[in-house]
Amino acid sequence: MAGNSFGKLFKLTTFGESHGAAIGGVIDGCPAGIELDFEAIQNELNRRKPGQSKIVTQRKEPDTVEFYSGIFEGVTTGTPIGFVIHNTNQKSKDYSHIKDVYRPSHADYTYDKKYGVRDYRGGGRSSARETASRVVAGAIAKQFISTIDINAFTSSVGDIFIDKPYQDLDFNLIESNVIRCPDEATAAKMISKIEAIKKQGDTIGGTITCVIKNVPVGLGEPVFDKLHAELGKAMLSINAVKGFEYGSGFCGAKMTGSDHNDLFNNDGTTKTNLSGGIQGGISNGMDIYFRVAFKPVATVIQKQEALNSQGELVEMQGKGRHDPCVVPRAVPIVEAMTALVIADQILLRRQESREW
Amino acid sequence: MAGNSFGKLFKLTTFGESHGAAIGGVIDGCPAGIELDFEAIQNELNRRKPGQSKIVTQRKEPDTVEFYSGIFEGVTTGTPIGFVIHNTNQKSKDYSHIKDVYRPSHADYTYDKKYGVRDYRGGGRSSARETASRVVAGAIAKQFISTIDINAFTSSVGDIFIDKPYQDLDFNLIESNVIRCPDEATAAKMISKIEAIKKQGDTIGGTITCVIKNVPVGLGEPVFDKLHAELGKAMLSINAVKGFEYGSGFCGAKMTGSDHNDLFNNDGTTKTNLSGGIQGGISNGMDIYFRVAFKPVATVIQKQEALNSQGELVEMQGKGRHDPCVVPRAVPIVEAMTALVIADQILLRRQESREW
Amino acid sequence: MAGNSFGKLFKLTTFGESHGAAIGGVIDGCPAGIELDFEAIQNELNRRKPGQSKIVTQRKEPDTVEFYSGIFEGVTTGTPIGFVIHNTNQKSKDYSHIKDVYRPSHADYTYDKKYGVRDYRGGGRSSARETASRVVAGAIAKQFISTIDINAFTSSVGDIFIDKPYQDLDFNLIESNVIRCPDEATAAKMISKIEAIKKQGDTIGGTITCVIKNVPVGLGEPVFDKLHAELGKAMLSINAVKGFEYGSGFCGAKMTGSDHNDLFNNDGTTKTNLSGGIQGGISNGMDIYFRVAFKPVATVIQKQEALNSQGELVEMQGKGRHDPCVVPRAVPIVEAMTALVIADQILLRRQESREW
Amino acid sequence: MAGNSFGKLFKLTTFGESHGAAIGGVIDGCPAGIELDFEAIQNELNRRKPGQSKIVTQRKEPDTVEFYSGIFEGVTTGTPIGFVIHNTNQKSKDYSHIKDVYRPSHADYTYDKKYGVRDYRGGGRSSARETASRVVAGAIAKQFISTIDINAFTSSVGDIFIDKPYQDLDFNLIESNVIRCPDEATAAKMISKIEAIKKQGDTIGGTITCVIKNVPVGLGEPVFDKLHAELGKAMLSINAVKGFEYGSGFCGAKMTGSDHNDLFNNDGTTKTNLSGGIQGGISNGMDIYFRVAFKPVATVIQKQEALNSQGELVEMQGKGRHDPCVVPRAVPIVEAMTALVIADQILLRRQESREW
Repeated sequence: MAGNSFGKLFKLTTFGESHGAAIGGVIDGCPAGIELDFEAIQNELNRRKPGQSKIVTQRKEPDTVEFYSGIFEGVTTGTPIGFVIHNTNQKSKDYSHIKDVYRPSHADYTYDKKYGVRDYRGGGRSSARETASRVVAGAIAKQFISTIDINAFTSSVGDIFIDKPYQDLDFNLIESNVIRCPDEATAAKMISKIEAIKKQGDTIGGTITCVIKNVPVGLGEPVFDKLHAELGKAMLSINAVKGFEYGSGFCGAKMTGSDHNDLFNNDGTTKTNLSGGIQGGISNGMDIYFRVAFKPVATVIQKQEALNSQGELVEMQGKGRHDPCVVPRAVPIVEAMTALVIADQILLRRQESREW
Repeated sequence: MAGNSFGKLFKLTTFGESHGAAIGGVIDGCPAGIELDFEAIQNELNRRKPGQSKIVTQRKEPDTVEFYSGIFEGVTTGTPIGFVIHNTNQKSKDYSHIKDVYRPSHADYTYDKKYGVRDYRGGGRSSARETASRVVAGAIAKQFISTIDINAFTSSVGDIFIDKPYQDLDFNLIESNVIRCPDEATAAKMISKIEAIKKQGDTIGGTITCVIKNVPVGLGEPVFDKLHAELGKAMLSINAVKGFEYGSGFCGAKMTGSDHNDLFNNDGTTKTNLSGGIQGGISNGMDIYFRVAFKPVATVIQKQEALNSQGELVEMQGKGRHDPCVVPRAVPIVEAMTALVIADQILLRRQESREW
Repeated sequence: MAGNSFGKLFKLTTFGESHGAAIGGVIDGCPAGIELDFEAIQNELNRRKPGQSKIVTQRKEPDTVEFYSGIFEGVTTGTPIGFVIHNTNQKSKDYSHIKDVYRPSHADYTYDKKYGVRDYRGGGRSSARETASRVVAGAIAKQFISTIDINAFTSSVGDIFIDKPYQDLDFNLIESNVIRCPDEATAAKMISKIEAIKKQGDTIGGTITCVIKNVPVGLGEPVFDKLHAELGKAMLSINAVKGFEYGSGFCGAKMTGSDHNDLFNNDGTTKTNLSGGIQGGISNGMDIYFRVAFKPVATVIQKQEALNSQGELVEMQGKGRHDPCVVPRAVPIVEAMTALVIADQILLRRQESREW
Repeated sequence: MAGNSFGKLFKLTTFGESHGAAIGGVIDGCPAGIELDFEAIQNELNRRKPGQSKIVTQRKEPDTVEFYSGIFEGVTTGTPIGFVIHNTNQKSKDYSHIKDVYRPSHADYTYDKKYGVRDYRGGGRSSARETASRVVAGAIAKQFISTIDINAFTSSVGDIFIDKPYQDLDFNLIESNVIRCPDEATAAKMISKIEAIKKQGDTIGGTITCVIKNVPVGLGEPVFDKLHAELGKAMLSINAVKGFEYGSGFCGAKMTGSDHNDLFNNDGTTKTNLSGGIQGGISNGMDIYFRVAFKPVATVIQKQEALNSQGELVEMQGKGRHDPCVVPRAVPIVEAMTALVIADQILLRRQESREW
């Protein structure tokens, strides 16, 4: 119940703090018989890892995952997959200045009030370092659901947006630039924007769009566990996320029914897809697409007023190695969480068929 | 796992179809010793019930709830509260025309593909009639967490928005008009808009804003069960919802960190509240506020092309009694789901204290 | 979490007190497309119901179940099945004498200490009346897993035991006598024993054996959710149960490995079956069999000392209509819980297959 | 759902195979602020570890636990506790002879049929080596519930039983002999018995009794999650367990109600305790006691017929390092599982109080 597990049948439990000995997790419920591509797993970790480009944090972590169980001769055995990523580049001294200080818009204050004790180094458990474990599990989930395509990309940084529908984008270009935006011209603007923001010691928000193709019809459980509710919760569980919309989203709230309805083709597909591939909480076989809003990183390398545990306001200067914008590194995390949701739904779907 | 339960410790399971004998539910985990105000429960149902005004569906249902267990001499006993609302005004004949037809942007197609059999009358399980059970449970949850204030209201209909921050609104006015908008001038415009749309046999979307006041610090469980992730899932589980944002939301994705950070006051409150009362997934004691997007109702009283189970496109004319806009009736549902989340979190919070 | 739900994928939640308006439940996760035999369901209820013979309680309840949802034109739809059994023969006056009194070896004291408030009439929620809801759900589970045979029977009453292995019994005879013992001579002795005990105003314990045939290989989840652990928990959740053993059980603890091991036949079956059809927590296709111990009913129609809520010892005289021995009515309950476990395991098993 | 987690609020998830790189687990929900005694944790592991005496397996494992998270400066932080025990003394060659062979009464056959792939070395996931992770978690649970006393001991080996009630035993003597029987004379006989059995290359079963003292009133959740049902499931999840009984147990099934009822004292305690400290599934404050049956270890160092994956019966000779009787090493495992159940129940109990 303490909230460190995700999924019902394909289930991930994570552990680990930013500056502890290691982070890691257990995947329980991964089906047996999947021949794993370990390079593909490491590749996903590399997409998330710090130090990969000029526009992300310069902390250096190899982020090498070690698997301890659940795999025999390269194949999943159906038993739980335990894995660990050792932390190697902790610079805990960087954090001594925040030992008794609550940084604004961080989790320092709330963790301290909730637990009465906290590992303050690098944000401890509240650090996005935890998401490396999600990426490992998501990479395995992707291999399980290999016929389904999941592509996330940066759709905006600050007020710079891609101005095309996703159908006009070439997802093969996502990895062609460090911001992970498949529209090259927009990507260049986004990167410049982040570089400028970084120079000011400031940070900036952005959005990520994710598209799921080749989804079978019938995923999602009414009533409370609608497919988009599961996706929404998954996205809202990622650090710094402030909003989620799917299909027509917030724009749909301005529309009329006659404009919004997706008329059918003979084969059950629809002419438009404002529904976003989900109707009544259940996938209808069309593309699922959604958008996730990320706030700007709270650590700015500027002087700011903070609160200490004695209730005094103190001036502090942001230090440490931080991302000026989380979005490029969050792209593989969005994909990982999406893969975890879909893998879980595939398992749920399997058991509800009428024959046995 | 089939998705008809909500909550971990304060747990609701619902059942029932739009045109079956009855809908209802079981609340398991409601603490013992709460003296229930049954009139308050019925009042919440009345806020949701059909036929309450000109701008909602004209189906007539008394929506009287009967409690079968878990209450003794007016007081909760800690055992499960079973309750039932009998359906009285089913006009199933209204639905014979859709027996073999999948209406556009409804759940007809996906339910049929998922289950292979469906109660097509009035949308069956996919009907928002199910939410009456949520309102019953939410009304009890509200009584359990009575020191916490939950107020939802209509913040937009189509392109008509309230143009004030919620702090400038008087929540006592929410019930003063049929659209449940506390800004009288805007409310009038919204109502006119819906009346015009209804005359055209069309429908329109809208948004609801919800504000939670007097929240204790420390609610919410990292990592996957962040407080806003739970609220988001709760909202996304409501029929017709397309998006959720809290605090700065999607606007926050355009901001810089130096503008977005909420600086502290001495007492741990913050000068601004772009965080929306939640930091690191845990409540910080400030107001929690969020916004929910509802699409336009899919049933329009116009001719539309639909698909039948033989794969033929057929012309159909929307019938039945439907809402031109779900938003006014969804206000108590948003509040109910919010109350269920907060009640659940209060129970989770209780058990994590260090003393026993 | 409050403990009124059973099962992971085929999930039952029950509600209701002995003398409330109704008892009932919700079955969530029952697959769609099962054509229900309602007579068979009622027949299971009749096997459990009071007043069915001279050796059980004389409370008269028709125990007629009403289904409110999840079934359309006689077929399950995959949506939750809500059902209710109205209580009709509550004689709450019978219980006024225990309003402030804790009866020995009942749940009166513990419920009062736990919840601080209780429905004392007929034991309230602690009454075995709740098990009628389990029988309804179990009867539906049986229809889902119709190729698997579940037979429970009375194997002892007091010190009268069947002295044959179950393989030598004809399960068709179980319903041929009121004690539900397939060995006619032993059945007669058991019935006489109970009649004698009843005359003394006393009660007596007994055991039930259950045999599951035609079980597929592969049910049960290591490590914590071993198949026999799930069966054991199911049985221990039935009122008055004090023990559970499967296969060789407590006798196995006296044996040597060379005597206890079940040697294989070529086809994977085993020559002996001390394992009880389960190895490593997973079914191996052999018969699963287990034995359940029931204590004597605590309500004796004799003078006994009880405790009142003021901490005084008071003399009380047992009243009401009670079973001199729970075992005959518990036979269908054991079968129902077994069916619920197996149905759940079948669903779990379905989703773990490697193909999709 | 795959069954590798235990507990609802104090939750353990384990991973690891007998001969993999490591075993370990994650404890989620352990309250913050517990100052851990690491020596006490290691001491529990030492009680379980192989090679500790002549009557257990001679595999040598230091069983040193490493904690990776959830602890800061020796104190629990409320975040998940990840831990690992590296396997050091795997002699996988010992198992090459069973690569394609299903040993009788092991889990080889069922795992293979269930998963289609298996780590055959040392039983893989089905090995009792997994229980080391339980002992780590149980040791932490014990420290959380430190005012509650949990003592397990060997109550029988084969047909050698302690012939005294537990009240006449001195639990301080449990660790005074290698069989962990607090009755010295009986202990000596048990040890001789095991030595004789071992000489024959055979194995023998036994029972463990566990007593919980100083239990608060009110633990346990009706209906399905009765306290003894949770304890029973916990015990039945331990390798080699065939039966569970609490209080009067199977003997209670032979008794009359007038003999079995536990009459009250003025203070709510009872004069006798055939109930075993639990009434209506809820603790009543008296000692909880139960007994667990363990079958003889299936690996005998004798020639036996086994089945290979080609469906041929083959003669095999047991090898490897095995326990002639699991009971002495299972004592700390029984205590660990008991501690996990009680810790979980304490957390559940906390949240149901009426005040907040």
